[in-house]
Amino acid sequence: MKHNLILLLLFGLYACSQSDLSMQLQKASWIDLSHEYDSNTVYWPTNVKFRHDTVFCGINSQNYFYASFKYSAEEHGGTHFDAPLHFHQGGESIEKIGMERLHGPAVVVDVTEHASQSRDYLVGKTDLENWEKIHGRIPDGAVILLRTGWGKFYHDHLKYTGTLKTGVDGVRELHFPGLDPQAAKWIAENRKVVAIGIDTPSIDNGQSTEFLTHRILCASGITAYENIARLDEVPEKGAYIVAFPMKIKGGSGAPLRIAAILP
Amino acid sequence: MKHNLILLLLFGLYACSQSDLSMQLQKASWIDLSHEYDSNTVYWPTNVKFRHDTVFCGINSQNYFYASFKYSAEEHGGTHFDAPLHFHQGGESIEKIGMERLHGPAVVVDVTEHASQSRDYLVGKTDLENWEKIHGRIPDGAVILLRTGWGKFYHDHLKYTGTLKTGVDGVRELHFPGLDPQAAKWIAENRKVVAIGIDTPSIDNGQSTEFLTHRILCASGITAYENIARLDEVPEKGAYIVAFPMKIKGGSGAPLRIAAILP
Repeated sequence: MKHNLILLLLFGLYACSQSDLSMQLQKASWIDLSHEYDSNTVYWPTNVKFRHDTVFCGINSQNYFYASFKYSAEEHGGTHFDAPLHFHQGGESIEKIGMERLHGPAVVVDVTEHASQSRDYLVGKTDLENWEKIHGRIPDGAVILLRTGWGKFYHDHLKYTGTLKTGVDGVRELHFPGLDPQAAKWIAENRKVVAIGIDTPSIDNGQSTEFLTHRILCASGITAYENIARLDEVPEKGAYIVAFPMKIKGGSGAPLRIAAILP
Repeated sequence: MKHNLILLLLFGLYACSQSDLSMQLQKASWIDLSHEYDSNTVYWPTNVKFRHDTVFCGINSQNYFYASFKYSAEEHGGTHFDAPLHFHQGGESIEKIGMERLHGPAVVVDVTEHASQSRDYLVGKTDLENWEKIHGRIPDGAVILLRTGWGKFYHDHLKYTGTLKTGVDGVRELHFPGLDPQAAKWIAENRKVVAIGIDTPSIDNGQSTEFLTHRILCASGITAYENIARLDEVPEKGAYIVAFPMKIKGGSGAPLRIAAILP
């Protein structure tokens, strides 16, 4: 009897040791949370849109195929990363954010129900507390992702942003959910998170004029991700986030490739 | 005696189960293998350089600090990703490369010694065989990284590329190591790798005029990383690579944020 138990435990230990990090990462499911950059990419109404121009595409003089393009854009459009510099004087620019702040366990706070009833919904402290009641305290180093359900409207700009107008007129008509500045303040003061992401164009809601949530997060060194895709595929707990911005020196923001790893 | 053994095994199993994926990733060391994008970023002599222009930076009319910039560049400069479309008609563009092809166990092939003796060195099949003799067969899904030692010259453009000239005159004077087309063919036909990266400006060496290595890899659906940084910090075996390109729709290449995870 004891012999069998010892054999069973030995086998368990062997199996456990075999599942090393590399093997686990190769077997895991990686979900792409970034939208594509193209002429339909969502930008702020006052921003210039993404451009992708052909340098060469076809059979060249040496008789083989070759393709190369160039691109240009504002930092804060599409699925992108906000560095503290964006709203905080002397804040870190993109290249100064160390690798240890570009990944962490996912905390997905679902407010789809509330947001479906008000397009100006502000994710509050109560929503964060509700997550903690079910899943335990937000872990140190976490990446909080706010799932408002807005991601599925991304390709319908009117529904997603609230307007098709550009310039200052467009800004006035923006309507989409965001994070309540009071909740941002509570996170900054009471939890140790590396970033907060959202599936809308901005971490402040569309009707914000003071951008207090941005200012609080930037002043606290908490980075932000905006226009996140496919958040409906990420569970409320258990995923691991890798969020890599293009390394723009002096950047206040940058295009972001972000993935959720599901063990 | 047996009781003690059982207790020891139980403890071992507990410890092993506690080191789940999330905890391992948080505790691991992440090495940033990307250079920064700025006005000194290395581009091909015929390319336009990276631009980063200020949209606004300072105290705004509402009396708070705000910073935002815009950028423009060619796809194939700095630490970047080559999609199969780059040298293969009908090849996949950036957004079509699935997440499962953006990570994998690192195989670091060191040829620093050879490259220090010839700046036109071609990494050959023998170099790959030497790696396999020591570390075993290149695993399926691997990311092969060619460490030529060139990375440390990145900020000295003359030494790194062989020339300071621009245009066609510059192209003729390019000198840096690359991958032998015969070795590229051998990998494509005999091993299942997702990508091959190098710490020089191109996977074909500087004196290449036919770009056969690019054409072989692109035709085989193997992606490439160029201008990789800090490869001297990555061991020959045991690291795990995460390589996330900016998701440019229709892109033949894109800026790449790449990291090595050391358990």
